[in-house]
Order: sequence, then structure tokens, then C-alpha cells
Amino acid sequence: MKKPWDGIIPPHEQEAYRAAGFGRASGLGKRPCLLIIDVQYRTVGTQPKPFMEAIKEFPTACGQVGWDAVRQIARLLALFRQKGWPVIYPYVSPKESFDKGRLADKVPALMTVARRGYDFVAEIAPEGNDVLLPKKHPSAFFGTPLASYLIERAVDTLVVTGCTTSGCVRGSVVDGFAYNFRALVPHDAVYDRSQVSHAVNLFDMSEKYADVMSTDEALAALKAIDRAAA
Amino acid sequence: MKKPWDGIIPPHEQEAYRAAGFGRASGLGKRPCLLIIDVQYRTVGTQPKPFMEAIKEFPTACGQVGWDAVRQIARLLALFRQKGWPVIYPYVSPKESFDKGRLADKVPALMTVARRGYDFVAEIAPEGNDVLLPKKHPSAFFGTPLASYLIERAVDTLVVTGCTTSGCVRGSVVDGFAYNFRALVPHDAVYDRSQVSHAVNLFDMSEKYADVMSTDEALAALKAIDRAAA
Amino acid sequence: MKKPWDGIIPPHEQEAYRAAGFGRASGLGKRPCLLIIDVQYRTVGTQPKPFMEAIKEFPTACGQVGWDAVRQIARLLALFRQKGWPVIYPYVSPKESFDKGRLADKVPALMTVARRGYDFVAEIAPEGNDVLLPKKHPSAFFGTPLASYLIERAVDTLVVTGCTTSGCVRGSVVDGFAYNFRALVPHDAVYDRSQVSHAVNLFDMSEKYADVMSTDEALAALKAIDRAAA
Amino acid sequence: MKKPWDGIIPPHEQEAYRAAGFGRASGLGKRPCLLIIDVQYRTVGTQPKPFMEAIKEFPTACGQVGWDAVRQIARLLALFRQKGWPVIYPYVSPKESFDKGRLADKVPALMTVARRGYDFVAEIAPEGNDVLLPKKHPSAFFGTPLASYLIERAVDTLVVTGCTTSGCVRGSVVDGFAYNFRALVPHDAVYDRSQVSHAVNLFDMSEKYADVMSTDEALAALKAIDRAAA
Repeated sequence: MKKPWDGIIPPHEQEAYRAAGFGRASGLGKRPCLLIIDVQYRTVGTQPKPFMEAIKEFPTACGQVGWDAVRQIARLLALFRQKGWPVIYPYVSPKESFDKGRLADKVPALMTVARRGYDFVAEIAPEGNDVLLPKKHPSAFFGTPLASYLIERAVDTLVVTGCTTSGCVRGSVVDGFAYNFRALVPHDAVYDRSQVSHAVNLFDMSEKYADVMSTDEALAALKAIDRAAA
Repeated sequence: MKKPWDGIIPPHEQEAYRAAGFGRASGLGKRPCLLIIDVQYRTVGTQPKPFMEAIKEFPTACGQVGWDAVRQIARLLALFRQKGWPVIYPYVSPKESFDKGRLADKVPALMTVARRGYDFVAEIAPEGNDVLLPKKHPSAFFGTPLASYLIERAVDTLVVTGCTTSGCVRGSVVDGFAYNFRALVPHDAVYDRSQVSHAVNLFDMSEKYADVMSTDEALAALKAIDRAAA
Repeated sequence: MKKPWDGIIPPHEQEAYRAAGFGRASGLGKRPCLLIIDVQYRTVGTQPKPFMEAIKEFPTACGQVGWDAVRQIARLLALFRQKGWPVIYPYVSPKESFDKGRLADKVPALMTVARRGYDFVAEIAPEGNDVLLPKKHPSAFFGTPLASYLIERAVDTLVVTGCTTSGCVRGSVVDGFAYNFRALVPHDAVYDRSQVSHAVNLFDMSEKYADVMSTDEALAALKAIDRAAA
Repeated sequence: MKKPWDGIIPPHEQEAYRAAGFGRASGLGKRPCLLIIDVQYRTVGTQPKPFMEAIKEFPTACGQVGWDAVRQIARLLALFRQKGWPVIYPYVSPKESFDKGRLADKVPALMTVARRGYDFVAEIAPEGNDVLLPKKHPSAFFGTPLASYLIERAVDTLVVTGCTTSGCVRGSVVDGFAYNFRALVPHDAVYDRSQVSHAVNLFDMSEKYADVMSTDEALAALKAIDRAAA
């Protein structure tokens, strides 16, 4: 089956990873949690538009690819709600004057995003007992009590969605891996402003940290958890 | 000047990042620290060989690119020793039976690397009061007291070298950024088993987390710190 | 000079610590930061009252001792404002339905404190660029980006005030110590619902983690920082 | 039943905590892990001696109380081995020249403990797949991958033993609580150089963070876990 990084990571490099023994499956556990990272209007725009139009509304917007992912996330969310599995929304909280630091150096435009941009995208907004997790840094684990929420819920597997693939998704997957959570990344439910970086980050995660598959495959694997436990 | 990712990240994607306001310089502070990550024989081999030969000795070896980077790291190390600036060696400690976890799932070959592979590469081995920092997970910060060592030394800037660009270097840079340390990544002093992933991870870091430049440029920038303070 | 724990920690135990070599001074650095922890109406009450009255308003209230400490904190705050030194307010954010965990087991009453209780005490409320730091767990460092704020501000010394001595103050001091920040605890600017536990926690911190002194002494020591640097 | 802090925390203070709603039981989960913290010869001496004699061998020694606790820990360890439950040994690793920091300020004598002192006490030494966890700071969680080991083992409950009650035990319990692990502290399986501080720290933990009981009671509660699951 074609991988998102085919045509970008050349065959001899993929073979090198195979020869060295990377990229085995870590598999799913029994208690998954859905992370929906930074799916706020600031990353998709208030409506679907091409990238160069979208960044006029919010410099952080990824454009159409974001809205495509939202549709896939909605399918995963529906399954998690039906199963009663936990759902957590790590999100960027509005920047305050005291938040200046390296982010303000590297991407000053991120400090002045309009408040409306921080709202959750309505199609997949939080409900009921979903955990809201404000964060100040890329990884959903860094400087947040995410690990405590996961331990309380006896989670063993993270299904990681949202954006950007090369930013907060990648950072959260690496930390989740380090904490020994299993991770599944549905490649069409994460998005990025660069398609090459998106693909290569999926490759990196697939080789070292997570199982990467389509949302279709992820839904099938997640639905099979119950059967395995029965 | 040509960037390591030119020809891999297409021009329109680089322009998109420019338009959105990413990739500004964070600059150097006044108190740099050199991190030499995982430069052990396990990642370069006991002698320079092509990749497919090198992995026969250690599955974790990156081959010739590692030895090329060692020469650049040696130049940086010489400057840090001359200035009396701190040098820290985050390194992978030998895997124990109790260390199984996600790493053993994804890359089981990493669990059985020969002990010799864990030795530091002699050309840039630790000395004197250098900090030795064993780690179990990718980022040099995760599950280690690295932040405590940096705070004790009043460090404000990390110069990050070693391997792999897409693994422990990337993870350490992202965490260093989140802690608000400035980061400089000399692109020829870090190495990886995939040249595409190496380049794209440099791009990601340059756009969001760190200043990426050659070792020549890094040495010039570091030497200028004293002049600025004088 | 009489210590807050004299009469509680018996002389032979104090002598034992002396003989074993504990309790040396760590001293102040050059860049102090004031932490005002959990000084919200929930911990002092909307007005000074005896403890058994105060807990009728908020079960978390400490009564008169809290208001006494507020007066001392105000003196420290005035100095920090005058010097332009950083001030950070770690505080308990209102409990959400998803916040259940060990705290809800051990002290269920803490889950239903009235919203008014979460307001900062007006006499020493945040201003300008003060950092507001919501937290979910005792230590101001746990699950928060406090370390990042301190690193950005090049802080080397924490002046820790607020409540409770045996809870969030103690937890924050232990973590600050582990991060290698110097810590000063003005014993009359921290408060607790138990005077014995207050005193013994000050003893523990003084022997192992922090310099403990009166606010008068702390102000003198802090004012001397500038002279030392001049 | 008499509590270790009766006679030290006066009745009116204990009543105040009852009135405010503190000190409920958190109970045991289903997957306990035994933490044996810092039970090395440096904390008990190579043989039982009175405190003022013991510190002549190692300034960190607690004397006879340590050996009394070792006997209780041995009983808990036997149960964990029989059940096949995980056992983790957080321990102080020998201090290196680069380890200076706040600890060297507050208790310089700790920097020069003889190497023999770092050996595990033979009566309860690690075996087989027990996890060895070197640490540089008080809490077994700080700067270590302890959380990762616990998550991999799906632990939900920590049984915390060793020393000192007011130091590394207390720090580890507070962090374990913040991570949402349940904690049980058998009060005769932890030890300290001050009996008053020992008792008050047990009180603090019992009121806010952990269930405190005798080793007899703890063994009964732990044996009941299987029955509950059957």
C-alpha cells in the first residue's frame, strides 16, 4: 500500500531503515484516548480557503488540508463518543504579554492572532466531560498535566489528530512514546502547512514512535479492540 | 546561501512559511552550552564505513555521515573548552531487561546493541567536569535532570550536535525551545540515517525552534559572544 | 534567634541535624523572582475570621494566619515592583468535572469551592506583566510551564510566599530546589491550617531545601542584592 | 487507633482538618508497585547503631530506625515477589564533580559519602527484572523516567517505602499524587532522622496525598486486591 512518504523518502532510504530494523508496529492497547490537538479556527480558518488566502485571516492557518482533516477527525470522534472512550483537547491558549519567549522570537506573528482564532472548530467541538488542556508550548505534555489525566483514565494508547504534523502533533507523539504510551497517528487526520514536511514527519513517527495509518484503517483497528477484549 | 533543505522542500512551500511569518532568528544569548548527543560508537561504528556495512556492526549506526559530523563537533568542542563553557554529553545507556517499552516494540534491534557500542567516540570524549547524562528516551530532557544542570550553569543557549537529526537531536531541540532556551543547530554537526529526513528536520527546526547554520557560521557567531559582552 | 520550629522539633533532633551537616545556607543569587502561591479568597476568606468560622465560607480557608501573611507578602511585593523584578502568581484554577483524581478522593470538599474563592486577594493582586500561572496540582512546577517562565527571565532565586506551607509552598520549594534554583522562604509570609505542620515544614525546608527567615530579614537580604552587584 | 502523629499534632488541629474535609482515604487500585527509596547503606549504616554513632560512618545515616524499617520492607517485598507485582528501586547515585548545585550548598556532607554507602542493603536487594532508578534529586519522579516505567506496567497504586520520610519519600508521594497514582505509605516502613518530622510528614501525607497505615494493615489491604478482582 502506498505510504504518504513514498516519492519523498527515496526507496534506498526506506530500505536502509528496513535493514536496520526500524518501523515495527507497536500495536494498540485496550484503553485508547483521542487527542485533538490545536483544531481551532486559527489553524483552519473560519472557512475553507487556499493557503495563501487562509493566512490573511490567521497567519497560523493551514488552509484546505485542515478542513479535510476535520472531516476525518469527526469520524474518529464519533467512535470515541459511542464507546465512551476519553477525548482530550490540547489547545493553544491566547498569548499574554508575559508569554514572550522563544516562540515570539521565531514566529512573532503567532503572538497577535485574533481571539476568534482560539475558538474550537464547531464541527468537532468539546462536549460533556471532555478534557480541555490549555498549553503554551508545542507538545501537549510539556508544561501541562496531560500525563496525570491519562494515568487517571488508565489510558494506554493515544490516537493523535490535529495539527501541525511537524509541530504539536510530532512533539506530542514523541513525548507520548517516551512516557510509554502506544500511539496511532491517522495520517489524513493530521495536517500541516508543508506537504513535504507533513510526509517526512509521518515517516519519522512511523519508523520510530507510532503506528501511522489512514483513518479508515484506524477506525477498523479501534473497533477491533472490543472484540479482542470480549 | 543554499540551505540543506533546498531541493527537498519546494520553493512554494518555503515561500508559504515566509508569508506566514515563520523562521525568524532567535539569536544567541550570552551563556552557551554544548550538547553532544549520542555520539557513541553505536551511532558511527568503530570506524567509518558505508551505511549498509556500518549497520552490520551496530544496527543504530549511521555510517560515514556520522564521522563527518564528528570532525565538526571537534571544532565546536575545542572552542567550548578554550572558553571554559559547559559541555554536556547526553547518551544512551545500555538497555536493561526492565527497559522494555515502546522502543522495544518499534525498533527491537536497539535492545541488543553490543556494550562496546555505548562507549563515547574517542575523538570527542568527555573530560574533566563535563556532565555525563544517561537517558532512556529520545529527548535529552525527558526523564533526565538536564534542565537542572542548565539552570545551575545559568545557560541561556544550547548548541545542539550529534544524532540523529530526526530523533534525539530534534526531540532535544523541541524541549529546549519549550523551556525557553535559545538553540543553535550546526547542520553539519548533526547526522541521520536518512538524508531527506535530516534535511526536513533541519527545515522544521529552522522554521520553528532553532537557528540552523553551518559549523563555520556557528563558530563565528559563538566567538562573537565575548566581543559583544566586552 | 528563635526559630519557628523551636519548641516543636526538640533540641536533640536539631543537634542531630547539625552533627550530620544539614541546614547550611544556600544564599541568594542575583536575579530573584517572587512566587505568590494560591493567595486567593479561598485560602484566606473574604475577610479575616477565626479558622472554624473561615472554613464555613471556604473549606480551604486558613483564617487569620492567612491575612497576617498577606501583609508581609505586600511588603515583599512592593520591593519587587520597585526593583522591576519578576512576580509570578501560581494559583488554583476552578475545578472542572474532568479534574477528578486523587485530590477528589483525599479532599472532596476542594472540588466544589465557590467561584468567588478563586479570585486573587485584592491587596496583593497581579498587575501589568506579572505572570499568571494556573495549576491543577500542588507544586507550582508540576504540569505547568513555570520553569520556562523562570528560564526566560534568567531567574536564579525564588522567594516563595503564600499557602499552604505544608502543601503547595513545600511542593514548589522542593521542585525549585531540584531544578537548582535558590529558594528563600519568609516564614511569616507563608501560612497553613496547622501551626505544628507549618513549623515542621519550615524546619524541613530550612534543613534541606531553602533559606528560611523572617520577612524583615528577607527584605534586608534582597535589598542587599543590588549593592553586591554594584 | 493511635496514629504516629498523635501527641505531636494537637487534637484541635486534627479536628480542624476533619472539619475542613481533609484526610479521606484514596484506597488501593488493582495494580500496585512497590517503591523502595534510597535503602542503601548510606541511610542505615553497615550495621545497626544509635544515630550519633551511625553518622560517623555516613553523615546520611538514620541509625536504628532504618534497620527497623528494613524488616518491614522485607515483608512487603516478599508479598510483591510472590504476586509478581513490579518493584522499583529509586536510589541516590554517587555524586560526581559536575553534580554541584543546591544540594551541595545546603548539605555539603552529602557530596562525599564513601562509595560503599551507595550499595543496596543486602536484606532487600534488587533481583531479576526489578527496575533500578538512579536519581539526582529528592523525588523519585524528578529528572527520572519513573512515570514511563509505571505507565508501561499499567501501575495505578504506589506503595512507598524507604527514606527519608521528610525527604525523598515525601517528595515522591507528592509527585505520585500529582500524577494521579494512588499512594499507600506504611508508616513503619519509612524512616527519618527526626521522629517529629517523620510523624508530621506522615500526617501531611495522610491528610492530603496518601493512605498511611502500618505494614500489617498494608499487607492485609494488598492481599485483598486479588480477592476483589476474583
